Amino acid sequence: MAKRVAIVGAGVSGLASIKCCLEEGLEPTCFERTSDIGGVWRYTEYVEEGRPSIYKSLVTHSSKEMSAFTDFPFPEDFPVFLPHAKLLEYLRLYTKHFNLWKHIQFHTTVISIKKRPDFSTSGQWDVITETNGKQKSAIFDAVMVCVGFRSEPSLPLDSFPGIDKFNGQYFHSRDYKTPEVFAGKKVLVIGMGHSGIEIAVEATCTAKKVMISTNKGARVLSCVFDDGYPWDMVFFTRFLNIVRNFLPGNVTGWLIAPQVNHSNYGVVPKDRSVMGDIVSNDELPGCIMTGKVSVRPGVKEFKENSVVFEGSQEAEEVDVVVFATGYKASFPFIDESIIKVEDKHASLYKYIFPPRVEKPTLAIIGFIRPFGPVIPVHEIQARWVTRIFNGLCKLPPVNTMLEEVNEKKKKKLKWFGYSFAEVLQTNWIVYMDQLTSSIGSKPSVPALLLSDPKLAIKIFFGPCSPYQYRLVGPGKWNGARNAIMGQWERTLKPMRTRVVDTSSFIGYLLKALSLFAVFVGILYGFN
Amino acid sequence: MAKRVAIVGAGVSGLASIKCCLEEGLEPTCFERTSDIGGVWRYTEYVEEGRPSIYKSLVTHSSKEMSAFTDFPFPEDFPVFLPHAKLLEYLRLYTKHFNLWKHIQFHTTVISIKKRPDFSTSGQWDVITETNGKQKSAIFDAVMVCVGFRSEPSLPLDSFPGIDKFNGQYFHSRDYKTPEVFAGKKVLVIGMGHSGIEIAVEATCTAKKVMISTNKGARVLSCVFDDGYPWDMVFFTRFLNIVRNFLPGNVTGWLIAPQVNHSNYGVVPKDRSVMGDIVSNDELPGCIMTGKVSVRPGVKEFKENSVVFEGSQEAEEVDVVVFATGYKASFPFIDESIIKVEDKHASLYKYIFPPRVEKPTLAIIGFIRPFGPVIPVHEIQARWVTRIFNGLCKLPPVNTMLEEVNEKKKKKLKWFGYSFAEVLQTNWIVYMDQLTSSIGSKPSVPALLLSDPKLAIKIFFGPCSPYQYRLVGPGKWNGARNAIMGQWERTLKPMRTRVVDTSSFIGYLLKALSLFAVFVGILYGFN
Repeated sequence: MAKRVAIVGAGVSGLASIKCCLEEGLEPTCFERTSDIGGVWRYTEYVEEGRPSIYKSLVTHSSKEMSAFTDFPFPEDFPVFLPHAKLLEYLRLYTKHFNLWKHIQFHTTVISIKKRPDFSTSGQWDVITETNGKQKSAIFDAVMVCVGFRSEPSLPLDSFPGIDKFNGQYFHSRDYKTPEVFAGKKVLVIGMGHSGIEIAVEATCTAKKVMISTNKGARVLSCVFDDGYPWDMVFFTRFLNIVRNFLPGNVTGWLIAPQVNHSNYGVVPKDRSVMGDIVSNDELPGCIMTGKVSVRPGVKEFKENSVVFEGSQEAEEVDVVVFATGYKASFPFIDESIIKVEDKHASLYKYIFPPRVEKPTLAIIGFIRPFGPVIPVHEIQARWVTRIFNGLCKLPPVNTMLEEVNEKKKKKLKWFGYSFAEVLQTNWIVYMDQLTSSIGSKPSVPALLLSDPKLAIKIFFGPCSPYQYRLVGPGKWNGARNAIMGQWERTLKPMRTRVVDTSSFIGYLLKALSLFAVFVGILYGFN
Repeated sequence: MAKRVAIVGAGVSGLASIKCCLEEGLEPTCFERTSDIGGVWRYTEYVEEGRPSIYKSLVTHSSKEMSAFTDFPFPEDFPVFLPHAKLLEYLRLYTKHFNLWKHIQFHTTVISIKKRPDFSTSGQWDVITETNGKQKSAIFDAVMVCVGFRSEPSLPLDSFPGIDKFNGQYFHSRDYKTPEVFAGKKVLVIGMGHSGIEIAVEATCTAKKVMISTNKGARVLSCVFDDGYPWDMVFFTRFLNIVRNFLPGNVTGWLIAPQVNHSNYGVVPKDRSVMGDIVSNDELPGCIMTGKVSVRPGVKEFKENSVVFEGSQEAEEVDVVVFATGYKASFPFIDESIIKVEDKHASLYKYIFPPRVEKPTLAIIGFIRPFGPVIPVHEIQARWVTRIFNGLCKLPPVNTMLEEVNEKKKKKLKWFGYSFAEVLQTNWIVYMDQLTSSIGSKPSVPALLLSDPKLAIKIFFGPCSPYQYRLVGPGKWNGARNAIMGQWERTLKPMRTRVVDTSSFIGYLLKALSLFAVFVGILYGFN
């Protein structure tokens, strides 16, 4: 009999998990507390209790070709970066295409997940759910937790002396929907993650004044790289990954961020060796240069109608404060002895498995914030996990797993806290390759070079698009090669609404020449 | 007795003209039809008859250091790119500092400017003005016309078949103030100049759908160049000007626009050798990539609620059409025998003097759209003109002037219509240098290299900031050297609201190395 798998949540990682279960001959049951799929990507006009909430203008930070599930490219007429409604539409297409809907039980909340008495031999779980006030218990052979890391807003008011005296309005970024709320106001946004920056930029449409406060700073990249290509299709190539690993860390750092000298804007981390968040935004530099957004240090204290920043005596008037201070992850339905979140970090092998659980039948999918497109990472996690569930892949011994987990903890190398250079070097591609090596679906460039040199070159020098992980091995998809060959065409298609001649041979020639020269220059500089 | 000069208009060029008259010992009288200075830069919430009108979010496209009058840097706390209110504030500071206000007669419209009967010997003009309904006539020794080129909106409805049947709303970009007007609407913006692009981008905040239609296309540059520096401070250097003139045209074109491969966006001119407008905008590429703005070809026809584009059969729904089709220049108070505007072009020597007028006592200031910062160009024109008025500079013989003017006409080399490469090579710096050579205030780099090598290097490799034209010769300003030495400090000052360490020696070293390598690469490629 097929193994029964409980999946908690029907967002991106939940849907990928259902699909991978079906692919591996497992029997998935997905519990979703709301009435619909999509998780964080399902926009609602009003904030709903217990759900993440996004703002109206939100757009993906990764391009559609890099954000696709590995065997399901986005429709070619979708824009390159996706407004939330388009991403949700894509998830609906995926759900329909792979017939996932019937495996989801909506309006169903998972109350508890507990080891069965015979867990050490069976690896089974008792899962209690509640639908319309009625509880139900069922036994599952394995569990995939797909609730993301945005369970509840983190609003650390204790760290802001005087906030209780503050007479203005304040709210968490989760409660932000549209910029009308800032009309004519003096706005302070606290936090420089994607939300903080985007809300600050958008506030400039209506606000009287906008400040953004950051303690730790951030690295701001442009979404549109040279020649107008999406940043991730240029940045995430196997070739550049090798180059970055080969070069010293600070050279890498310098190479990645040539467009913005953040120190001029007061944006970067004070300690340059620390990464801070890497966020992509095209508008912040312009907003800073026109004085529409002013970057400030951390907050020292709030007064009745004003704020005082670190290193300053002066109070500055503020009407509205937005705490873009992120979210807390939590798994209230699992006992803390099994998994415990501390400081946004849980001790998980490959960000997935609690290493001390005797049987590998509990997996956390999507509890990772890679510097790179998120959707394929979640799917690859689910592919690997379902093959572990059905016994085709194996975890290493507990000690090996604990060693890796502790190593990360010791060096504070949570994915969030790597040093700048290390994040760049230990990135998305490395993680994807590790998991797919274990599955047996990582493409081999040398082997391809013999059998299909054209494809090999695309794979090595071109974007490391998700379809690469469907070329060989388990889960091989016949459409993968075509998907790779057509990825640039699909990227450019939606923008070809006014066709002009695109031949620019001399441009390519010169670019190639100067890239070569830069390379020579760098080598020369190190000899 | 000092020569009396009539100045028409108290915008940027009018104010510069008053100041230059005073500097050259002339007696200026400025006639301004409204109640205040600032011209196009004085924002009003409602459109005023007979005045240019700007939208609420308008920001300069040139940086403050490159946009300054040659002897009056912007205050250091002003932002790098200036919202209209800040530019107006600067004009008020300038007016106050040089005591210009008392030379302006407000609420006074110039009705006619006519040659005196003895013009061929006296060069004098009869100027009829009207204040509060009362006309007045006065004799002036010279006239400076400073009314700009935005006298009346150009709304070429005849070129849009079916517009009379169109049931939606349509208006000229001049009537645009804020994006609320687009709330929930399907918007079509016609024209890809600065206004067109900015209105389209801003419309995405509120509109349901935004299209921008262009026949001729445009070149879109980023305002923020590599390392986050303002584009014009990097682009306009004497060094790069020489490099650009030395390289073949298409290499120059390729070098200037590395950031955006416009053909991917359908933005560039169809005929690549034609320049089209060069516009700077950081947000358009992102808007195109997220599908928020769709670039379309020219309009074939309008239907009741829709539009059909060239090369298409399909009608697309539209609710609001914005004609960002620019302005018409006109000089209704001067007889057409003296100056006539045809197709946005008037036959003027150096864009200033009607060459057939017997005496050089009528000058048009600011009737030029240079690819570069506008304010210093207008001022330099005024400096040169006032020295011609007082006899210290001379115009060439009529035939020489006519030859130059006709040459431009014949090749359609209006400033608007140059080929791409030619505009880049014959630009702002060349024009400024020509006029200041004639005045005697163009700095000599070789001479400076001997007397003040540090300054010489700044002048040659650094931004060609306006203060350079106050270092030597007539109008020499003692503050010029300091203004040049402090230009980067003043640029970065307003952004230093959160100070981080800015030392990045390895970055500079590497950048220098790779620039060198690029140079080697290019040379290598041509040998």
